[in-house]
Amino acid sequence: MIEIEPQSLLADLRALAEFGKVGTGVDRTAFTPQDIAARHWLRARMREAGLESRIDDVGNVYGESTGARQAVVIGSHTDTVPKGGWLDGAMGVIFGLAVARAWNARRPRPDFGVDVISFADEEGTYLPCVGSRAFCDDVRADEIAAARAKDGRTLKDAVEAAGFRDPRARFIPARHVGFLEAHIEQGPVLEAQRRRIGVVTGIVGIRRFRVSAVGQADHAGTTPMAMRADAGAPLYAIAARVHAEFPKLGAAATVWNVGTMIVQPGAANVVPASAEMVVEFRDLDLAVLDRLERHLLDWVAAAATSRVAVTATPIARIVPTAMTPKVQAMIAEAAREAGEEPLSMPSGAGHDAMICGRFMPAGMLFIPSIGGRSHDIAENTSEADIILGCRVLAGAVERMARA
Amino acid sequence: MIEIEPQSLLADLRALAEFGKVGTGVDRTAFTPQDIAARHWLRARMREAGLESRIDDVGNVYGESTGARQAVVIGSHTDTVPKGGWLDGAMGVIFGLAVARAWNARRPRPDFGVDVISFADEEGTYLPCVGSRAFCDDVRADEIAAARAKDGRTLKDAVEAAGFRDPRARFIPARHVGFLEAHIEQGPVLEAQRRRIGVVTGIVGIRRFRVSAVGQADHAGTTPMAMRADAGAPLYAIAARVHAEFPKLGAAATVWNVGTMIVQPGAANVVPASAEMVVEFRDLDLAVLDRLERHLLDWVAAAATSRVAVTATPIARIVPTAMTPKVQAMIAEAAREAGEEPLSMPSGAGHDAMICGRFMPAGMLFIPSIGGRSHDIAENTSEADIILGCRVLAGAVERMARA
Repeated sequence: MIEIEPQSLLADLRALAEFGKVGTGVDRTAFTPQDIAARHWLRARMREAGLESRIDDVGNVYGESTGARQAVVIGSHTDTVPKGGWLDGAMGVIFGLAVARAWNARRPRPDFGVDVISFADEEGTYLPCVGSRAFCDDVRADEIAAARAKDGRTLKDAVEAAGFRDPRARFIPARHVGFLEAHIEQGPVLEAQRRRIGVVTGIVGIRRFRVSAVGQADHAGTTPMAMRADAGAPLYAIAARVHAEFPKLGAAATVWNVGTMIVQPGAANVVPASAEMVVEFRDLDLAVLDRLERHLLDWVAAAATSRVAVTATPIARIVPTAMTPKVQAMIAEAAREAGEEPLSMPSGAGHDAMICGRFMPAGMLFIPSIGGRSHDIAENTSEADIILGCRVLAGAVERMARA
Repeated sequence: MIEIEPQSLLADLRALAEFGKVGTGVDRTAFTPQDIAARHWLRARMREAGLESRIDDVGNVYGESTGARQAVVIGSHTDTVPKGGWLDGAMGVIFGLAVARAWNARRPRPDFGVDVISFADEEGTYLPCVGSRAFCDDVRADEIAAARAKDGRTLKDAVEAAGFRDPRARFIPARHVGFLEAHIEQGPVLEAQRRRIGVVTGIVGIRRFRVSAVGQADHAGTTPMAMRADAGAPLYAIAARVHAEFPKLGAAATVWNVGTMIVQPGAANVVPASAEMVVEFRDLDLAVLDRLERHLLDWVAAAATSRVAVTATPIARIVPTAMTPKVQAMIAEAAREAGEEPLSMPSGAGHDAMICGRFMPAGMLFIPSIGGRSHDIAENTSEADIILGCRVLAGAVERMARA
């Protein structure tokens, strides 16, 4: 059995959190000086763990277990959202480092190694998951060339300015037996159910539609109801219907949201001239996503009149990615061996495992987020849960090495 | 029969529109240099029409028919909204001037006069309808003292800076037999029904509620539906219900609007933490207003849960003002005499007649607004309709003098 070292695990996590530290959180958006410095630090730590490490030409920090014929890849990302938490992404990378160290200390199977990776820009400052997409050869050169941050800077400029130019880290089917990612849950489920380990069944697909209505502004006192072209009313009706009918149309774990609603000109006594909202829904099952989409588009079509145009435009469409059942079972077994009955659950948020899982066997484990908080400096998890999570991950690696 | 002079009527209207001219409209918000200059001009024009004129200590320009024992008051306002139309308010004042001139040219009844007034700040830059409220002794000194524009300037400072300090124009029950106001419709009804004269049955009451919900922001992918405190969903449901059920609960002419909806933080993948909308409804009948209010408050109460607080706060409550039936009949007769079958209709917008009508017999006539437009520089009415409207008003004055 390999044994991780809790003290160096926590020390590495704390050391990484110093890069871009903001109160109890970090601000380490992709290709900022803080993110770049953290990547250089990580590359050095990988070397100290016995890995051959490099920072490739999209910013991935890759630590390769030399001499191994086969390897599991453990990783996540070390970039963050602005004013984000210290564990989101970072923890999955440091777990990889801790497990690689433990593995290399014993090497239970000499021809098998633990590769570790910190993918670039998972959070999408330039291009979401560009690191894992590049690793899986799942991004076109023209997409990378076109990627640009909100401030106008291109990804190419950012990578060049960082001086990252080592050869691309690549998924090699003959070498890589699978991908493992550990992550904080970023939701309240484990905490609410008093579980400490979640085994991710899959990463949900997302469909997101911008629903817009265009009518005409009129005086809300002097214009009879029948003569109005009210752009607000149809959108309120559709939003209400989403919340009333999706519970019946979706599956038990389906989630949806109408998170934005903008009504113009936005005065109490003026009939809305235009309105816009975004409706999104997520599920593991494509059939469920298709059913919800069909109904939403039906409601939109039915809401349009000769006076008010109502349209829906798809703005995001991410397919669900199932985690490999055999890998799920290995994580679950490792959890039980550590004395914890795990909870099987979907991931409602996207992760690098969503990309890797399309190309190789993949598994994800969650540990609880205190109060379900993430993408905020208040994000946290108890040290005991962090250590337990890393032990379970090590147990899963041993099982993959034996398979 | 008294005869108005169409050429001087139109010339006065065009001359007044030069003060604060903005393209085809005017910007003459209360107590701006443009509004003040227009009031001095108007005072002089009143004098030329044989009236004793003054600008009182709230800014009302009042032209008194000297020597008359009784008088009708004709008026409206010459202030505008920012970038408003050239007729809204101004037309009703210039009609008064034209009718006073015509009356004084013949004086069919020597002890009866036509008083003309331009009320101050009907549009509420400082205090809505402060001029007509002061004329009717329906405003408290502390309200005037507290009145303040958005830019922080007080009404008192504005009046003092303008140098307006003549004695207050006052409604005198023994003298004033009634109030007449002509106005553009500010809506599309006359045009749509191909009518040229509207007889206002009353000015609708308005109730306006701010409906707010407070929940909690959560990740819309990772937070199960049952664990959310979504502040958007209950407001979408209430707004949809207003539009679905008010048609059954209201009267034929009831109007309502949900013109603002603000959802925070307003991101597609974040559950709304707070939401706020304004629901308003208008009708001539207090019983209808009461019924709609009762239902709205019931829906709000039913929407609140242990997780999401939903509350309704009244922010405007204006009682309906019926126009005097006898005065309505006089306007209608005058219209028929001019060869036009009038349309009886409520006014969905507020006017100075709403104040005066609570204290004396009052009547209002509407002429069409092209395209229903107002509060915009595109506001307009044909010259033929303007001249006809003034003739009908003169006919109504003759009938009041005979009554």
